[in-house]
Amino acid sequence: MKFFFEPQGIALVGATPKTNTGGYSLLANLTLGYDGSIYPVNPRYPEILGLPCYPSVAEVPDPVDLAIVFVPAPAVPPVLEECAARGLKGVIIESGGFAEVGPEGRALQERCLEIARRSGMRLWGPNCMGLIDIRKRYVFSFIAPDAWQDVLNPGGVSLIVQSGLLAGGFMTTLMSHKILRLAKACSIGNKGDIDETDLLEYFLEDDDTRVIALYVESFPRGRRFFELASQRKKPVVVLKGGKSAAGARAAASHTASLAGNFELIRGALDQAGVYQADDFFELVDLARTLEMDFERTGPPQGKPRVAVFTFSGAAGIVTADHLEASGLALADLAPATRQRLEKLSPSWMPVNNPVDFWPAMEKHGPEITYREGLAALLMDPGVDAIIVHLFAGFGVWFLDVEKLFKGLHETRKPVLFWVMGHEKGYHPTRLSLEGMGFPVFNEIQRVVRVLAGIFEFGAKRESATAATAAPDPGIFQSLKTKIEASRESILDEREAKNLLRKLGLAVVPEILAADLSEVLAAAEGFGYPVVLKGRSPGLVHKTEAGLVRLDLNTAEQLQSAFREMADRPQPPADYLVQPQLQGDLELIAGVVRDPQFGPAVMLGLGGVRAEVYRDVVFRLAPVTKWDVEQMVAKLRGRALLEGFRGATPVNLDLLADWLIRLGDLACRVDAVKEIDVNPLLVVKGEPVAVDASIVLRSMV
Amino acid sequence: MKFFFEPQGIALVGATPKTNTGGYSLLANLTLGYDGSIYPVNPRYPEILGLPCYPSVAEVPDPVDLAIVFVPAPAVPPVLEECAARGLKGVIIESGGFAEVGPEGRALQERCLEIARRSGMRLWGPNCMGLIDIRKRYVFSFIAPDAWQDVLNPGGVSLIVQSGLLAGGFMTTLMSHKILRLAKACSIGNKGDIDETDLLEYFLEDDDTRVIALYVESFPRGRRFFELASQRKKPVVVLKGGKSAAGARAAASHTASLAGNFELIRGALDQAGVYQADDFFELVDLARTLEMDFERTGPPQGKPRVAVFTFSGAAGIVTADHLEASGLALADLAPATRQRLEKLSPSWMPVNNPVDFWPAMEKHGPEITYREGLAALLMDPGVDAIIVHLFAGFGVWFLDVEKLFKGLHETRKPVLFWVMGHEKGYHPTRLSLEGMGFPVFNEIQRVVRVLAGIFEFGAKRESATAATAAPDPGIFQSLKTKIEASRESILDEREAKNLLRKLGLAVVPEILAADLSEVLAAAEGFGYPVVLKGRSPGLVHKTEAGLVRLDLNTAEQLQSAFREMADRPQPPADYLVQPQLQGDLELIAGVVRDPQFGPAVMLGLGGVRAEVYRDVVFRLAPVTKWDVEQMVAKLRGRALLEGFRGATPVNLDLLADWLIRLGDLACRVDAVKEIDVNPLLVVKGEPVAVDASIVLRSMV
Repeated sequence: MKFFFEPQGIALVGATPKTNTGGYSLLANLTLGYDGSIYPVNPRYPEILGLPCYPSVAEVPDPVDLAIVFVPAPAVPPVLEECAARGLKGVIIESGGFAEVGPEGRALQERCLEIARRSGMRLWGPNCMGLIDIRKRYVFSFIAPDAWQDVLNPGGVSLIVQSGLLAGGFMTTLMSHKILRLAKACSIGNKGDIDETDLLEYFLEDDDTRVIALYVESFPRGRRFFELASQRKKPVVVLKGGKSAAGARAAASHTASLAGNFELIRGALDQAGVYQADDFFELVDLARTLEMDFERTGPPQGKPRVAVFTFSGAAGIVTADHLEASGLALADLAPATRQRLEKLSPSWMPVNNPVDFWPAMEKHGPEITYREGLAALLMDPGVDAIIVHLFAGFGVWFLDVEKLFKGLHETRKPVLFWVMGHEKGYHPTRLSLEGMGFPVFNEIQRVVRVLAGIFEFGAKRESATAATAAPDPGIFQSLKTKIEASRESILDEREAKNLLRKLGLAVVPEILAADLSEVLAAAEGFGYPVVLKGRSPGLVHKTEAGLVRLDLNTAEQLQSAFREMADRPQPPADYLVQPQLQGDLELIAGVVRDPQFGPAVMLGLGGVRAEVYRDVVFRLAPVTKWDVEQMVAKLRGRALLEGFRGATPVNLDLLADWLIRLGDLACRVDAVKEIDVNPLLVVKGEPVAVDASIVLRSMV
Repeated sequence: MKFFFEPQGIALVGATPKTNTGGYSLLANLTLGYDGSIYPVNPRYPEILGLPCYPSVAEVPDPVDLAIVFVPAPAVPPVLEECAARGLKGVIIESGGFAEVGPEGRALQERCLEIARRSGMRLWGPNCMGLIDIRKRYVFSFIAPDAWQDVLNPGGVSLIVQSGLLAGGFMTTLMSHKILRLAKACSIGNKGDIDETDLLEYFLEDDDTRVIALYVESFPRGRRFFELASQRKKPVVVLKGGKSAAGARAAASHTASLAGNFELIRGALDQAGVYQADDFFELVDLARTLEMDFERTGPPQGKPRVAVFTFSGAAGIVTADHLEASGLALADLAPATRQRLEKLSPSWMPVNNPVDFWPAMEKHGPEITYREGLAALLMDPGVDAIIVHLFAGFGVWFLDVEKLFKGLHETRKPVLFWVMGHEKGYHPTRLSLEGMGFPVFNEIQRVVRVLAGIFEFGAKRESATAATAAPDPGIFQSLKTKIEASRESILDEREAKNLLRKLGLAVVPEILAADLSEVLAAAEGFGYPVVLKGRSPGLVHKTEAGLVRLDLNTAEQLQSAFREMADRPQPPADYLVQPQLQGDLELIAGVVRDPQFGPAVMLGLGGVRAEVYRDVVFRLAPVTKWDVEQMVAKLRGRALLEGFRGATPVNLDLLADWLIRLGDLACRVDAVKEIDVNPLLVVKGEPVAVDASIVLRSMV
């Protein structure tokens, strides 16, 4: 990968002296910053911008290991053949007209990839805007020189964007408005070869990069991305495009990518500790805050505790509203903190959090108020972070923020600013604060959202990973043999539950009965009420077919339910009799196998709730008990698992067993495609499978 | 109220020649814009700023009908006495130190109100920043003259802010950044007398005001506010501070206001057609968009259909994600629209929504692309609104938006712009577009949120209000007599259900039984399974006391349940036997009486769901069937009412009966404080009360 970022000579295929074209901008950009050899390639010109121009890549002299290609799509494959013959290590194809325009372009892209594969050359793009290294002033992109020349502002965030046009517009916006200080920015376009996972791996080791921010629409190597991000070497922030059904449709038609199941991706990214954004500037806001050297761990238990230091009661109230909605807590100030703040304020002013500093300001002026007030809050061990509200004006309202906030960073507690004010004062104040390492926001909901975001994975580092005793590996081997021998594509309720029972998981007892007398005998054995289910080969949706009868309280009721099933034109082959369990809660557990991320487990609030409230959480398998605790914590209805209204709390060890073993089965037995345990009934705190099915895939 | 906005002469009490003080700024502001007589009042100076200064209000000559007071709080009551004696109509008290600082200040404020009440004079404030009329350049506020002089930019939005300091800072920000074009802005502070409801009433009739935007923390006259807003004369947008428990605490301690039950307020504002924001700039963004003369009705059925016109596939995808999350739909383009767009685009480009216009732009340039592309979308009857993405650059990227978008407004379909770009191009582009009547946003989630917001009440105008047949008014009268005669503070299950039955509402049948033989006979009559409940006088929480046994399937089970209750040290006084109903769904319905908004009805998903998922909706009583339909539409779990998974859909007429009659009862019988019908079980589509209680309040 290094030859893309620090090439030893660049051949620029498609260079042209015509201004206002991509081929010209590319060359101009190289001459403005790149310090190696630049070789324009174009048979029509002897030289461009004072550089000798070569008729073909073959004739380019040494040293050269990278080509940038900006010629019409059909002309690209022959150029690549030349690049391969010339022994280049990498090619950035910035031209469009490939997979993004339909089947013909897709075939063209495939030809390019085939040429690269044959020669071991790496391809970047096509349909991309290349890369920029802000510190080195390397701009390998057709972005207009005017857009970046005066505004490169180096920092620690590296950006990876799967989008051609957006990359340029977004970069121009970020740089010219001084919103983000970047290390490197990459536009990966159709990502035929080089993709976000390659770049993630590179940036995790890149000294200039402290935070990695990505806009992507798909993760073709999701599992590898997950593994890399899970190392937690540097904060990774992702905006995933194509979350909704509608968004996914747009993704399929607009790009060469396939949008996955977003709930699953959300779970996998959470599990890996990847910060997630919903919009472009939110991505940037999270990244620029994560770049600051803040301590981002909250208390070991409970919510991060925030102090709000404000000039306005109303702004304090709205901030408190957003803190609560975002799962953050208003800090309870320690007595010592209160005393210091009381000294600062006039006597009539009650000290509370949000701390309204205006009366103190009128008494002492800004310097004493800010320095002493914030020092008190920073010293308070019950305060994990501070949001400061500032009015930045002019004249008497102008604040010398360098003086006011110097040294504030020493505790490494996050201090985030919400600033409003006259435009004369706003911009210089924002730039000064950000230069000092304090991120500035102009919307309360955004500052709170970002603060909640940066604490998202704070607790994890404090907690150990526990695992329950696994079943004998021999059991998985014997199940694998059995499953692979199955001729069915779906294991029905009885087979599925037998298999789960072998994994040491609790399933409802049941008896297979051939006729009425066996049915009645089974019920007698369990005691009433019972459940009667008719089995028909190949039938999975028994309830819809009228082959499930619950709450049968007497032999008469059972007999009449049996008759109804048996008297059908196509009676069941046999029957299952189960005791009617009384549970406190229905859960749903399962397994899916994602083509990009591999096997994943799911936990949700069961029955009707799972589908209507969509209260489900995914994690990639294998999972640990810690993962399962996190899954429970993410359920909106988690209170139901914690012993709601006097019910027995769900035994988390047993629940973890369920998800750990389902996940292990999926990891060890490739033939398992999906598992549904629904409902997973909680009886006196213990999860018991009442119904289940397993979908297999052919391993031939 | 007119004497506040167009006074015939103003006495300014507390005027001073000392610069950088409020008393000076107030006077300077008056001299810069107010065209009536200005009378500074201060015994220490013969004149200030060239105006004769008066030692007291008593000595101020005619004409004068308004005083603005900015002297220390303890000095205010004597000033008010003078104002009253002088026959002034109104006084704006901008000084602080009243109810917001504690009991002493509260007493001072009460004295001020008492003086005003006695003389019929109206008070504005205290602890406020007064008002500004942007068109007239009337600035009755201590805001610094530098903050507004060069930036008054008249428009149609009038702003009401319950906050002292915020008002000034917010106004300065809005005006200097040219974010909002205002008509009038009012800071109402502690709103001892003049409150948001007075100003709403005034602005509904004010010719300069097209939209009314409010930040408030409480609605002391909620019912009247609701009635005024319900007239729908002009769009009203509200940001309510103190939504959360934490926020409400901050409200109680920081201001002289009490935050209500936000769920109830949210419901009441929805019902009145009031647009709601969660943050300051969101309030502004909604208001400035509502000010544009857009048609804000969506299709009669279903979601508003949005076309997205974008230069970037990625931005289109992210917009589609947010549209789906916000309850808006991507429009399906009509064949004629597709044909027009296909002609515009190169042949390889599939036409979809989001419409990626970049390839067309490369082919035809911006003028043809924008004019023809947007014309096609505007003509499409299946498109209710358009979001246009624009990159505003410089040089070749500079767009002459006046030329490109002229005449686009004629269809009155909302066209909202998301603009990014180099700062050189961004600001002029934004100002030009907004000058033409197209609101500009820089975050995708905000443009989508605002678009969803302005359509919020679009459907309502299309639909008629239906009502079901009401019970005989005589019934309410007889219930009123009965309830007022009750000696209990709570009507228990049996009494409550009897009362509901008299309203013509379905309740579970039940028999009151004194002993085991009566219990068994009752069960025999209903048929098993049955429910047994023990009644003890004054006991409401029967379940927690172990006095409810469900699912009793046989006489033996019933007998043993009876024994358990009867053998207790304190056995029940008598018993209720009910058939065990099998329902598809548990709802919860109820009534509460809000001190500010009056009686309200509630509907929610019942049982455990109501509390864990908080899936409840409020409306003020009386309600119509239309209101009930809106309540159902607002429930997140509404699919459960619509016949989920083959269940019978809930009969909406019967459900409406429930809420209409509960609401009517609360409106007609003041002694009813709360009603809980929980669960309201849905049996074959029909709601039946299984348990209920009614809390009374003493009317003595």
